[in-house]
Amino acid sequence: MNNQRNLTMMTDLYQLTMMNGYFATGTYKNEAVFDLFFRANDQMNYAVAAGLQQAVEYIKELRFNPDDIEYLRSLGIFDEKFIDYLKKFKFTGDIWSVEEGEIVFPSEPIMIVKAPIIEAQLIETTLLNIINHQTLIASKAARIVYSAKGANVIEFGLRRAQGPDAGIYGARASMIGGCKGTSNVLSGKMFDIVVKGTHSHSWVMSFPSEIDAFRKFAEVYPDNCLLLVDTYDTLNSGIPNAITVFNELKAKGHKPVGIRLDSGDLAYLSKKARKMLDEAGFTDAIIFASNDIDEHLISQLLLQDAKINVYGVGTKLITSHDMPSLGGVYKMSQITRDGVDYPCIKISDTSGKTTNPGFKTLYRIYDSETHKAFADLIALQGEKIDKPLKLTHELERWKSTVLENYEIRNMLKKIFENGKCVYECPSLEKSIKFQESESDKFWDEYKRLAKPHIYKVNLSDGLYELKQSLLKKSKKQ
Amino acid sequence: MNNQRNLTMMTDLYQLTMMNGYFATGTYKNEAVFDLFFRANDQMNYAVAAGLQQAVEYIKELRFNPDDIEYLRSLGIFDEKFIDYLKKFKFTGDIWSVEEGEIVFPSEPIMIVKAPIIEAQLIETTLLNIINHQTLIASKAARIVYSAKGANVIEFGLRRAQGPDAGIYGARASMIGGCKGTSNVLSGKMFDIVVKGTHSHSWVMSFPSEIDAFRKFAEVYPDNCLLLVDTYDTLNSGIPNAITVFNELKAKGHKPVGIRLDSGDLAYLSKKARKMLDEAGFTDAIIFASNDIDEHLISQLLLQDAKINVYGVGTKLITSHDMPSLGGVYKMSQITRDGVDYPCIKISDTSGKTTNPGFKTLYRIYDSETHKAFADLIALQGEKIDKPLKLTHELERWKSTVLENYEIRNMLKKIFENGKCVYECPSLEKSIKFQESESDKFWDEYKRLAKPHIYKVNLSDGLYELKQSLLKKSKKQ
Repeated sequence: MNNQRNLTMMTDLYQLTMMNGYFATGTYKNEAVFDLFFRANDQMNYAVAAGLQQAVEYIKELRFNPDDIEYLRSLGIFDEKFIDYLKKFKFTGDIWSVEEGEIVFPSEPIMIVKAPIIEAQLIETTLLNIINHQTLIASKAARIVYSAKGANVIEFGLRRAQGPDAGIYGARASMIGGCKGTSNVLSGKMFDIVVKGTHSHSWVMSFPSEIDAFRKFAEVYPDNCLLLVDTYDTLNSGIPNAITVFNELKAKGHKPVGIRLDSGDLAYLSKKARKMLDEAGFTDAIIFASNDIDEHLISQLLLQDAKINVYGVGTKLITSHDMPSLGGVYKMSQITRDGVDYPCIKISDTSGKTTNPGFKTLYRIYDSETHKAFADLIALQGEKIDKPLKLTHELERWKSTVLENYEIRNMLKKIFENGKCVYECPSLEKSIKFQESESDKFWDEYKRLAKPHIYKVNLSDGLYELKQSLLKKSKKQ
Repeated sequence: MNNQRNLTMMTDLYQLTMMNGYFATGTYKNEAVFDLFFRANDQMNYAVAAGLQQAVEYIKELRFNPDDIEYLRSLGIFDEKFIDYLKKFKFTGDIWSVEEGEIVFPSEPIMIVKAPIIEAQLIETTLLNIINHQTLIASKAARIVYSAKGANVIEFGLRRAQGPDAGIYGARASMIGGCKGTSNVLSGKMFDIVVKGTHSHSWVMSFPSEIDAFRKFAEVYPDNCLLLVDTYDTLNSGIPNAITVFNELKAKGHKPVGIRLDSGDLAYLSKKARKMLDEAGFTDAIIFASNDIDEHLISQLLLQDAKINVYGVGTKLITSHDMPSLGGVYKMSQITRDGVDYPCIKISDTSGKTTNPGFKTLYRIYDSETHKAFADLIALQGEKIDKPLKLTHELERWKSTVLENYEIRNMLKKIFENGKCVYECPSLEKSIKFQESESDKFWDEYKRLAKPHIYKVNLSDGLYELKQSLLKKSKKQ
């Protein structure tokens, strides 16, 4: 259903005004290379790539419908010949991308588009929209899951998501980041994700008393009885009532699942609850916690020995609350005119914001002994990678390492070739597994929430020299 | 297209498990009243309601399709009789809501649902998703527009929005908040919004030189020539080249539109640019600024006399960056059992989080002399409002005001009656006008970005007494 939406018109107007301009000036067939990457930020030193499947569907469905054409004509800014061109528009270029679940770092080209400039320009906005959003949420989920140290994390944020898609695709991305289920039924149906949920305060409030509400719930779900205990008073009413009902269930041969805490101090209450449940003989009953949870709160709760088995994470995950945008960009790195390739650079006052020129690719280098990731290398397409390999810091040139024994993996897969999709999107399950296995190849020091060790992302010699030469040339002009 | 999506399955699983429970326990027809409201927060003391039109469409389209039914059955947790019930599910209740563009405050019921509990429960998640998102973005837009003191604000955030819907409906909500256009072509088409945009850095980089790129753009758009001047060097290359091209345009009888700044210090650069443009005789050329703009930056830029005519606001608006969720909730306030209405209350340790019980309504009180809004009043349905009216602070009871002459307006419109939509959604233009006129009725002191004056939201005597009696009763138990 949502997958079949046609998002061709979901673009910034300037893409269309530029396309009309390229068409009018006869430059529209010039082949351009664009890199999609995100910039360094304080909250996330690494990201988990997600959204490729929706990006692929978007590209496959690219076409302007008659009513789109009518609307564009009504704007009165486009040439009729260009409108005719749009009627037959389809994507004819090449796209490379990292796969979903890949661990990626700032400034790395995680997607590369090589296509006639008029086509590459149209798709900028929606590619960024999809990849920015899903990568952001997968990355946030990965941090939350990492902080939970093995306790399950369930995505619960639909009601606070920024619109339907943010909830639907946010749940999907959360799974790629390592969550074990979602409350979102539609996402469950669309992507075959485990769905979770029992009852809310309104269930309790709709019956004459809490114990009555608990009993009724246990009657309906004798083998799936997880009770929310904080509607009136967690320690004096909720947990004692839950234990009463658990005893009744037990007497009938059923095993209660556990309780959910949704307010109050989760460290204090979970420890008290654990003790009360254990003393009543329900040592297997789980404690499920929700309420404004994120990776920082989980870390603090664990330091205080909170007894929480499962975290239900809502608003803070589904909106990536402390950093609600990834800031991914899509920058031209090469343009071909009259058969000649011109690498391009966008210069910025801030050295970190100057782009990497040329038609590139991306490698991950693993240490042959530990099999752990050692560094990533952004190189020019076709450039030879030496063995031993010398890696030099881009700005602080005196910092370099020589690697004798390493394994190397090209992280970019070909997704579209001459407009045709040549990539089969793996199942969500496979992407989740890929994220897990790749994440295991990174030392914990890179994943620490505060001041993590910075993973090396280097430029190849060829790319470094190209960048320097363009910087010098621009300085002369 | 997007409007026709069926979001029936977009709900939290616990809504369905509770529905199955209400069905199994025979309580499903009990009439419940739920209030949708948001809680006080530090960033936004007031909000601009938005999203009602999409909420109405959602309710109208409620139905489970055969493949939904199949999926739900496959979960193995629902009774077959309940599944049969779902096949024929439709909404049969009543809904009241404030209109889009209404200025609303924390704890006010901005939507009230009165329906059989099984129906009221299902729609909680999606109503919250839609209203939370659009109200958040309309509110953020209103703050940005207020800070711009009459300069136009254009929504530019699609590429950073949290998925397609966040971009599409975020653009719509931004207009309700006072923006004057969007870059989002699909939103333009769907909601008849003015679309804006000229060119990006890639246009400039795709030609051999900046002046060449500007000339080509001017050729294609001689009467709509707004040039982005920061690709290489704003003051030494971008603006001088733009002025050269503007002179060429002028010689041919065209009037250039202006320039866009997208990096660097916008106060310094806009003042320099204004001077250069004025000295070249282009006093009418506008300066359009973008790059990480929000209401706080605009205020600071204006204090430094920045010369900016139009603001393009992206990431910070479309994600409501400093507060990416409104935190709206949907709480049961009354349940009917065996023909008797039981008002309910959810008690919290934090006094501000205890809910207001009962079947209520919402009034705005205007001072008859100034015609400005004086206070809002949450009252019980059918409660008589006195003249003169005594308004007393809920917690600090010694604080009260007596109003002799006032006008009163019921803010809640009936939207659905017995499941039938009885409300015609106004055009977007009308909602925008409503927001403008209602906003004018609030003193500027309430809209200040930092430490604004707090607008009075009072409980009626009847509601206050009901709340106190329920609190006392709960204390006894």
